[in-house]
Amino acid sequence: MSKPIYIINGPNLNLLGTREPEIYGHQTLADIEKLCAIAAEDLGYNIRFFQSNIEGELVDFIQEAGSQGSVIIINPAAYTHTSVALYDAIKAVSIPCIEIHLSQPAARESFRRRSYVAEAANGTISGFGVKSYLLGLQAAIHLLEASA
Amino acid sequence: MSKPIYIINGPNLNLLGTREPEIYGHQTLADIEKLCAIAAEDLGYNIRFFQSNIEGELVDFIQEAGSQGSVIIINPAAYTHTSVALYDAIKAVSIPCIEIHLSQPAARESFRRRSYVAEAANGTISGFGVKSYLLGLQAAIHLLEASA
Amino acid sequence: MSKPIYIINGPNLNLLGTREPEIYGHQTLADIEKLCAIAAEDLGYNIRFFQSNIEGELVDFIQEAGSQGSVIIINPAAYTHTSVALYDAIKAVSIPCIEIHLSQPAARESFRRRSYVAEAANGTISGFGVKSYLLGLQAAIHLLEASA
Amino acid sequence: MSKPIYIINGPNLNLLGTREPEIYGHQTLADIEKLCAIAAEDLGYNIRFFQSNIEGELVDFIQEAGSQGSVIIINPAAYTHTSVALYDAIKAVSIPCIEIHLSQPAARESFRRRSYVAEAANGTISGFGVKSYLLGLQAAIHLLEASA
Amino acid sequence: MSKPIYIINGPNLNLLGTREPEIYGHQTLADIEKLCAIAAEDLGYNIRFFQSNIEGELVDFIQEAGSQGSVIIINPAAYTHTSVALYDAIKAVSIPCIEIHLSQPAARESFRRRSYVAEAANGTISGFGVKSYLLGLQAAIHLLEASA
Amino acid sequence: MSKPIYIINGPNLNLLGTREPEIYGHQTLADIEKLCAIAAEDLGYNIRFFQSNIEGELVDFIQEAGSQGSVIIINPAAYTHTSVALYDAIKAVSIPCIEIHLSQPAARESFRRRSYVAEAANGTISGFGVKSYLLGLQAAIHLLEASA
Amino acid sequence: MSKPIYIINGPNLNLLGTREPEIYGHQTLADIEKLCAIAAEDLGYNIRFFQSNIEGELVDFIQEAGSQGSVIIINPAAYTHTSVALYDAIKAVSIPCIEIHLSQPAARESFRRRSYVAEAANGTISGFGVKSYLLGLQAAIHLLEASA
Amino acid sequence: MSKPIYIINGPNLNLLGTREPEIYGHQTLADIEKLCAIAAEDLGYNIRFFQSNIEGELVDFIQEAGSQGSVIIINPAAYTHTSVALYDAIKAVSIPCIEIHLSQPAARESFRRRSYVAEAANGTISGFGVKSYLLGLQAAIHLLEASA
Amino acid sequence: MSKPIYIINGPNLNLLGTREPEIYGHQTLADIEKLCAIAAEDLGYNIRFFQSNIEGELVDFIQEAGSQGSVIIINPAAYTHTSVALYDAIKAVSIPCIEIHLSQPAARESFRRRSYVAEAANGTISGFGVKSYLLGLQAAIHLLEASA
Amino acid sequence: MSKPIYIINGPNLNLLGTREPEIYGHQTLADIEKLCAIAAEDLGYNIRFFQSNIEGELVDFIQEAGSQGSVIIINPAAYTHTSVALYDAIKAVSIPCIEIHLSQPAARESFRRRSYVAEAANGTISGFGVKSYLLGLQAAIHLLEASA
Amino acid sequence: MSKPIYIINGPNLNLLGTREPEIYGHQTLADIEKLCAIAAEDLGYNIRFFQSNIEGELVDFIQEAGSQGSVIIINPAAYTHTSVALYDAIKAVSIPCIEIHLSQPAARESFRRRSYVAEAANGTISGFGVKSYLLGLQAAIHLLEASA
Amino acid sequence: MSKPIYIINGPNLNLLGTREPEIYGHQTLADIEKLCAIAAEDLGYNIRFFQSNIEGELVDFIQEAGSQGSVIIINPAAYTHTSVALYDAIKAVSIPCIEIHLSQPAARESFRRRSYVAEAANGTISGFGVKSYLLGLQAAIHLLEASA
Repeated sequence: MSKPIYIINGPNLNLLGTREPEIYGHQTLADIEKLCAIAAEDLGYNIRFFQSNIEGELVDFIQEAGSQGSVIIINPAAYTHTSVALYDAIKAVSIPCIEIHLSQPAARESFRRRSYVAEAANGTISGFGVKSYLLGLQAAIHLLEASA
Repeated sequence: MSKPIYIINGPNLNLLGTREPEIYGHQTLADIEKLCAIAAEDLGYNIRFFQSNIEGELVDFIQEAGSQGSVIIINPAAYTHTSVALYDAIKAVSIPCIEIHLSQPAARESFRRRSYVAEAANGTISGFGVKSYLLGLQAAIHLLEASA
Repeated sequence: MSKPIYIINGPNLNLLGTREPEIYGHQTLADIEKLCAIAAEDLGYNIRFFQSNIEGELVDFIQEAGSQGSVIIINPAAYTHTSVALYDAIKAVSIPCIEIHLSQPAARESFRRRSYVAEAANGTISGFGVKSYLLGLQAAIHLLEASA
Repeated sequence: MSKPIYIINGPNLNLLGTREPEIYGHQTLADIEKLCAIAAEDLGYNIRFFQSNIEGELVDFIQEAGSQGSVIIINPAAYTHTSVALYDAIKAVSIPCIEIHLSQPAARESFRRRSYVAEAANGTISGFGVKSYLLGLQAAIHLLEASA
Repeated sequence: MSKPIYIINGPNLNLLGTREPEIYGHQTLADIEKLCAIAAEDLGYNIRFFQSNIEGELVDFIQEAGSQGSVIIINPAAYTHTSVALYDAIKAVSIPCIEIHLSQPAARESFRRRSYVAEAANGTISGFGVKSYLLGLQAAIHLLEASA
Repeated sequence: MSKPIYIINGPNLNLLGTREPEIYGHQTLADIEKLCAIAAEDLGYNIRFFQSNIEGELVDFIQEAGSQGSVIIINPAAYTHTSVALYDAIKAVSIPCIEIHLSQPAARESFRRRSYVAEAANGTISGFGVKSYLLGLQAAIHLLEASA
Repeated sequence: MSKPIYIINGPNLNLLGTREPEIYGHQTLADIEKLCAIAAEDLGYNIRFFQSNIEGELVDFIQEAGSQGSVIIINPAAYTHTSVALYDAIKAVSIPCIEIHLSQPAARESFRRRSYVAEAANGTISGFGVKSYLLGLQAAIHLLEASA
Repeated sequence: MSKPIYIINGPNLNLLGTREPEIYGHQTLADIEKLCAIAAEDLGYNIRFFQSNIEGELVDFIQEAGSQGSVIIINPAAYTHTSVALYDAIKAVSIPCIEIHLSQPAARESFRRRSYVAEAANGTISGFGVKSYLLGLQAAIHLLEASA
Repeated sequence: MSKPIYIINGPNLNLLGTREPEIYGHQTLADIEKLCAIAAEDLGYNIRFFQSNIEGELVDFIQEAGSQGSVIIINPAAYTHTSVALYDAIKAVSIPCIEIHLSQPAARESFRRRSYVAEAANGTISGFGVKSYLLGLQAAIHLLEASA
Repeated sequence: MSKPIYIINGPNLNLLGTREPEIYGHQTLADIEKLCAIAAEDLGYNIRFFQSNIEGELVDFIQEAGSQGSVIIINPAAYTHTSVALYDAIKAVSIPCIEIHLSQPAARESFRRRSYVAEAANGTISGFGVKSYLLGLQAAIHLLEASA
Repeated sequence: MSKPIYIINGPNLNLLGTREPEIYGHQTLADIEKLCAIAAEDLGYNIRFFQSNIEGELVDFIQEAGSQGSVIIINPAAYTHTSVALYDAIKAVSIPCIEIHLSQPAARESFRRRSYVAEAANGTISGFGVKSYLLGLQAAIHLLEASA
Repeated sequence: MSKPIYIINGPNLNLLGTREPEIYGHQTLADIEKLCAIAAEDLGYNIRFFQSNIEGELVDFIQEAGSQGSVIIINPAAYTHTSVALYDAIKAVSIPCIEIHLSQPAARESFRRRSYVAEAANGTISGFGVKSYLLGLQAAIHLLEASA
């Protein structure tokens, strides 16, 4: 069977459903994991789903994906804007990487304009709430099949 | 029948297939229009597809979409980074707007880091080549159906 | 009879009355044209009134005003902040030029702080809604009569 | 009888008529006060006219206007570009405020590009010499009558 | 016969001869076209000569040159400093491109220091008035013959 | 008896209770003075309480405190962000100085991010409304007793 | 009994008492915890006290406080200036948050001028050594009782 | 008899002799006034000597000097770096102006690098303690006699 | 026996040998550890060797080194450019610290130009691949023996 | 006979033909001197040709040209971007000056975007390899004959 | 006899009397040397007078002054704004250093606002033409006698 | 015999041993040369050792090294931060180059943060006093032998 798709979630995303729902919506991260698992299965893929508030653990997940996964979907949340470590990790692995965001960072505080992750990732999907994950899944599979 | 989805293309995209194919791929804009039309039809929607090299005509298309369309998918190309006029036009219409890019601007010249369009749009999809259009279509329909 | 006063309107102003009325008010651009025509006539002047979404056509209008008009009133809208071409056009014609705005740009997004048009124009009037046009007319006639 | 219109003048404006007349014209501040008083009277209003070189006294006048005046017309001169105190004072009073300038600051030294007063005021009129005051009066009365 | 040399002129250059002659000289754009045509003919080449105030039409001309011309000489005027669209167009065509200016932008307003066109063009010639066009022609022919 | 604690209030604070109560609360400056006097008395200290809209008078109060007071509590309001004169005055006196704010400047306009006063003061307390004064009093007495 | 007050300490604060005592004083973090516990108890409250060098664990503590605590007092130390993750965490929880510092960051290296935490917190207390914690406790209880 | 030389002193200079003597020396402002008066008298001139902590009063003194004095020597202290009002006042009077400083601002905090006063003054003398005043006197008389 | 030399490695260095070998070389981190251990032993020293992807754990190692080690050699990798926490940790311990890099950060992306670690460390060695570690060892021993 | 044309070459140009030939071409500086001498002779002019790696010697050559030459052609190489001394020297001599470059600096490292020499020179020619010298010669003779 | 006063002149000052006399006056550098020699002699001192266009030779002169001179007066001209080498040289010698300028750099191009020399020198005198040298001499002797 | 190692020293290093010994140590440059010669000899290499205060002579030495040397060790001192000419020279030669510093520039004035030399060199060693030279020698030989 093919290697799983890694879906990696950054800081504070474990609060989804409770935190600022007017920006982030009402679904929990567990809800999103289920939706992604089902959607992936429908397309013949399986996923591994992670969350951590710790930048270095996100680096760990990216590294693990590099050896055991086929493609990375990452919602780096706050670390999007400050983490050279994530940038380096994505550059260091040889599988594709897709950056996703629930909200549209460019339309928020000015410090959210720069994304180190976008500078390393193959592509970016932002602003569609939970749908960003599902579009990310499709994009991931597209990249996998395009390079297959 | 529902109002069409407007897909608006900015400067130099009429050269697609000939221009820097290592960045933008080998398909022409006409190819992309066909792919989008078919994909939309499959989902029960129809599209209108535009291209102009003139910033103000892109503003015209956005305005037309505002009255005759249901949602905007825009690849603003070079105007992404310089056009307050597009920003204002998108803010002025009451339908959703999705920004797409074939390439990943954040990974290119530093002047491509700021997107005025992203600051006005609902969401952004970049870096997946022609697939960015098809993902944009899905995102568009998602927004339409979510707000229906 | 004296040369007409040129009133030139930039991008998205054709949407007036529908677009973000909490910022721009409820009157249409045709309403404004009528108000200006009447006010000018009362003062013994006639106007020519233009709108375009295209930066280069605004340059055309300024140039036409330079040979056929007596004074320019321009609401450059989004191009206020990005257009060196308008700056150059205003510098290139030998008649006076007045910049007007319906809203107060300095109180909005930070990218609206710089006005290239203000750097070339004789004066600026902003923040009074449609009244900005009528004050602009008076200022225009003042400049004409002062230099007569 | 209605509350007076406050016309507040900032630093060095007491020198008008002697100081750099190629920029500021030949009329004195007393001349301007008379012109404003007459113009206001013609329109059924009366004015109070102040000048100070001291930033904090300009704050005082704005505060006094807030309780005893109907609208503020302020030519903040040099404090335009440096005074958060004027910004706060204008924000703190509930009556409208109009910023005026004899010259066109945007066309002068680069440090004149930012106006803290413009960020707090309802509108701005600049570049018309003494006429800026008279246009400011009309704008003031317009705001008063629009909100009446 | 060989493909023509495209000479493309940006905004406000149609005013040449009337506009700020102390900066731009007294010859009209038609005069320059004639001088260029004669000079090209002497060297065994023919030219096509364009002017537009519209950024997007300059993009059109560059694209047309890309398929029907041999080399581009462009005086982008005000768009020099603001147009990523011209940058992209020049990058997108496979023929050489030479940027020219009548005046010396670096010695003027600070906003004229950055040239997006220079970042994409093969070379730049500025500051020699009409002679900049004739030197540009020679440079163009040099590039053609060097690559022949 | 020990020297009094100087509590110095900057521009527009005399409007407290009327000005933007959603930011600054409903108590007047006289109310605050009373609360501070009582709180100080309870702790065996007395206060002197000042307000001025004039930057230079705030400098005067700081200097007076330097010779006649024991410690300074200053709410510099708008001058926080622009006054090198206050910075110098605080540096010039040998008694401790505490900066206080009713609101949280860092969470407001970006021009409120820099505090010259904070760079000279011993400590800062912000964001607690009138309570900021009372905490400032305690901090002041702490500093006095720590250095006694 | 009421929910505890969370006191969260950032990187290197575990070294207190040994590290640069001329800046940070001679008391250990355990000393501070005891002082805070006693002071809280005197006021009828209890505390939970944490320290971590890991940014993501500070996020964890803030989240835990959001569900199990009544108010947060945080000394974010070095992460003050770099952590969008802390900003997001504080914004995400619905309880008040107070930023404290032993020293006065504004008076130190220029990179300490920006505080992301201050932009999200209700208030800030800095510069009073261990007393900053005790003042923070009072401020915390004030906010609790004010909103009770 | 000739008009006096105006020597104008800015904020906190009234503290001289007590304030940071390692930077500013031990002589009081009264001592300096005496030294200047004697030195001027020796050279056949008389002086007027002022100090204020209020920016606007310094503007007043400059204006008075403009009509009643022959030359201005100004130590603008903290207002050096922030006052457009002093810049405007110096520009507005037609007599020469010399900026002096006791210390060397360029060698201190980075915010002391810009001097608005230097941009308007004829010359600057800094870094020589009280001697800066005496050198300023000689420079003043030099300018007077050069233009006589 | 003397305290060991701490060699601390930052994020993604655990991938050495697989990651971008054209930049970082083909040896693994375990290979480097062995080389360092042998080299140290030859010189009469022993080492402790760490790696973590987590910023806060690097802080922990630095602190541990401060009490149990003699000198720190740190390759902070991506945290070089973003970590005030590492800066503070290095400043907080009283033993020497040497920053090393395999590559030459100044010759790479512009965000690698600033090193917070360099601002706190005694010295820096970069650009020599694995040899940077061995030179770092010699520098470490030099510092130890110089201060012995 | 007329005064010679000075051709002045900056640092590292003595390496031409060996240094980075993919950027600078294969001809040596001696080759270029010969080409220029022949080309000048054909047009009835003679040249003097210099090279130095020392900024001050380039200043010397410019000064010598100012008294003994008719026009300056300068390839300032690295000093283009850093030398106010060259700027001053060019401003100080009353003969025309033309800046040339073999490569196109605007298309290289960002620190090559600013040219102090361009701000002082009459015109600039860049990007044509050795042909830049020959075009510079023509431009020089054009300027000479235009002012004759 | 006492060590001589070193007067060191930077690039292009050898052109004095011919170069831009409206800025720098009509006296030659030899004239200035004579005036300085006489003035010094009158005061019981002798001078050594240098000029070079080469930054490194100015460094040499400063170093020579450090061992053989008593005080340095330097007019660093263009190197004022770009030379860290002069900054280091002045810091490296233990005698006083006075920066002088004929013109007022702060009132000229914006790149003249920063002076590296001012950051290292004891004091600065600018804007008085040749008189700047004579005032510099007095300041020099003042510093010598003050430290004697 | 192999080509010598070039050790090139920049401005003010000839003062070593006398200049600011708390930063640079007590050994003279001649002492360092001897230490380097001995150390090189021990390793079977010989050195050539240079110093100049003149930027262009450092360029000369680098060029000479390019043809007659095997590797460059350069302590560019003040020119580190300002010299594009050194950057270009290092890029132009095909032998390796190592940047060394006695002190740690990143820990000093902010203008020492950027190193143009580091952007061109293979590696950098800073902060170890004279030991930086000896480590540089080892690094140099390592590079030579690695590429042999």
